[in-house]
Amino acid sequence: MKNLLDGIEEILLMGPGPSHVPPEIYDAMTRKTLGYLDPYFIEIMDDIQILLRKLLNTKNTVTFPVSGTGSSGMETCFVNLIEPKDSVLILVNGVFGKRMIEVASRLRAHVTPIEFEWGTPILEEKVETEIFKQDYKIVAAVHAETSTGVKNPIENIAKIVKNTNSLFLVDCVTSLGGIQVNVDDWGLDAVYSGSQKCLSCPPGLAPVTFSEEAFSTVLNRNQKVPNFYLDVSLISEYWSGEKKRTYHHTAPSNMLYAFYQALQLIFNEGIENVFKRHNDSHKELVKRLEEMDLQLIVEKPYRLPMLNAVRIPDNVDDVKTRQFLRDNYKIEIGGGLGTLAGKIWRIGLMGSTARLENVERLSRALIQILKNK
Amino acid sequence: MKNLLDGIEEILLMGPGPSHVPPEIYDAMTRKTLGYLDPYFIEIMDDIQILLRKLLNTKNTVTFPVSGTGSSGMETCFVNLIEPKDSVLILVNGVFGKRMIEVASRLRAHVTPIEFEWGTPILEEKVETEIFKQDYKIVAAVHAETSTGVKNPIENIAKIVKNTNSLFLVDCVTSLGGIQVNVDDWGLDAVYSGSQKCLSCPPGLAPVTFSEEAFSTVLNRNQKVPNFYLDVSLISEYWSGEKKRTYHHTAPSNMLYAFYQALQLIFNEGIENVFKRHNDSHKELVKRLEEMDLQLIVEKPYRLPMLNAVRIPDNVDDVKTRQFLRDNYKIEIGGGLGTLAGKIWRIGLMGSTARLENVERLSRALIQILKNK
Repeated sequence: MKNLLDGIEEILLMGPGPSHVPPEIYDAMTRKTLGYLDPYFIEIMDDIQILLRKLLNTKNTVTFPVSGTGSSGMETCFVNLIEPKDSVLILVNGVFGKRMIEVASRLRAHVTPIEFEWGTPILEEKVETEIFKQDYKIVAAVHAETSTGVKNPIENIAKIVKNTNSLFLVDCVTSLGGIQVNVDDWGLDAVYSGSQKCLSCPPGLAPVTFSEEAFSTVLNRNQKVPNFYLDVSLISEYWSGEKKRTYHHTAPSNMLYAFYQALQLIFNEGIENVFKRHNDSHKELVKRLEEMDLQLIVEKPYRLPMLNAVRIPDNVDDVKTRQFLRDNYKIEIGGGLGTLAGKIWRIGLMGSTARLENVERLSRALIQILKNK
Repeated sequence: MKNLLDGIEEILLMGPGPSHVPPEIYDAMTRKTLGYLDPYFIEIMDDIQILLRKLLNTKNTVTFPVSGTGSSGMETCFVNLIEPKDSVLILVNGVFGKRMIEVASRLRAHVTPIEFEWGTPILEEKVETEIFKQDYKIVAAVHAETSTGVKNPIENIAKIVKNTNSLFLVDCVTSLGGIQVNVDDWGLDAVYSGSQKCLSCPPGLAPVTFSEEAFSTVLNRNQKVPNFYLDVSLISEYWSGEKKRTYHHTAPSNMLYAFYQALQLIFNEGIENVFKRHNDSHKELVKRLEEMDLQLIVEKPYRLPMLNAVRIPDNVDDVKTRQFLRDNYKIEIGGGLGTLAGKIWRIGLMGSTARLENVERLSRALIQILKNK
């Protein structure tokens, strides 16, 4: 059988993730695999936790990458915190909010969703009127809704949640590493992300963090977590055991090398510089899109820098255009998900993709393609 | 912060996995990351499935690597097949049989374990007297018990299970790629493995396969699978959708490249040659161990070639010896798990590790170390 790996071309990844992987990260993955209890490997794990806490702005002990993709991060947060019949309030304005409902319902939670129009943010006033109607164990929301490009006001919602007994569970898959995520200051209780967005790693890991209160909820469950693989009380004995690291599952060593390198790159560049690079690229992209008469679906104050949702012009074929862009210009952009399928493109400026030269390259390509329509 | 990746030394991995990763596989991981719906990436996924079916000797449509480590494979098989109160018979003769009880119980199955002495195989006669006592939905066993080095008679047990209505769920984490696994001929219904054992990939993926009957059990569940991330009915729409691949989660692209390369290497060498290499290395190791008066804990007919459990001599310190071996000879071997902790060493001859020169290197080191006791 032919080996297809030899035919892989580099595609500029400007979709909803994975994003461009820098050479240092590819290189990191080729470092020699070590055993999961090797003392040097454990030193690397310790450093990963230090850097990850710094990125999340948290002192949480329970802070590590879960051995699965971003979606396993969502599963981890819900499955550890939910017990059957727990009431969960989910604030929904896109596919990933919807997915939270699906995940929590499968775990037999009583889910109350509050829905907001896709492309618009979660409204604090509406949350405030709903949240005191009953005692929710968990309130959950998405920080950066990857399906619409909306930035939700997590800091403000957190202030409301603080006046309740609820734990605040937040999806930071697309936000982490591109905009500020302040776990401790904001008071977030359980947060998950993914390696393949603004961290510019290949997909495969899901960083999570649990506040002391959230973790004590896990430790005091009535029933064991109905998921051995993602049980954070067991995984943390491997990641943070003070005296002895206990085997739980074989750590994905080479992906962890990549993740470690990604964190190193962010702090070498300086986190503020990284955020500025995302923002500058976004501003340039918006300017270029406006010059092409392309409309963003999100109002200015709620736009994410790293995920730009653009309305597809009426006379333009979604799939054909994206295929043409991929085949002839070697650029990938994303299509719409759910109700927005066929209606929008999702242009990612995540991690190492967020550079002016990439915006320039995509803009030139789009101008040429749309001119020939 | 110092970058610890620069200090990684190559350790010869002769423990229970991960095993030695060949250069072609490190190289595969550095191929450019592609989007999860990129047409070329989907071609690679298709080839992975073809090769994986060949390795498993199955025609099962539902055959793909799950995006997690080997333990996520166990979780996947149980969580998709078990509904609350289902009765499950688990044949236990080591840590991974025990873990099956834990995983199944957390999913609210009624678990009946049959325990066999660790270091001895599952006895068919005992299975035969137990299995007809009630109607079990699932019978589960481990093929290659990584904690003891025992090869269980899966083919024979499968013949017994065939006379019942039960599905046969088998852990092939350590066996796949080292000894024959004949999913269709033997009649196995759900099988999982891991990337980091005889496939010589870094850890991070768990190949699974579901028979038609097992998959139809999943499709006809009363309740949805209580795990969105590992729901095989959804994942298979991404892996095998005939018309359209549906996004479920972002595929771990670069790990899949490594996995694809691992399968290519096995079939380039020839599967029979690969098995022979495992067996030859094992025979040589046994010979060398006997020359050193070291005893294997498993009787000859039940020994796994890829996992050799050796009794630690009375006057020898387990941890210190392994540390010395690692620090001075750059070789990793495994310690015992569970009740065998401190009592045995586990010497792995998995995948690319299974070579006479590695047996030679380890033997020389052990002779020197034990001589100086």
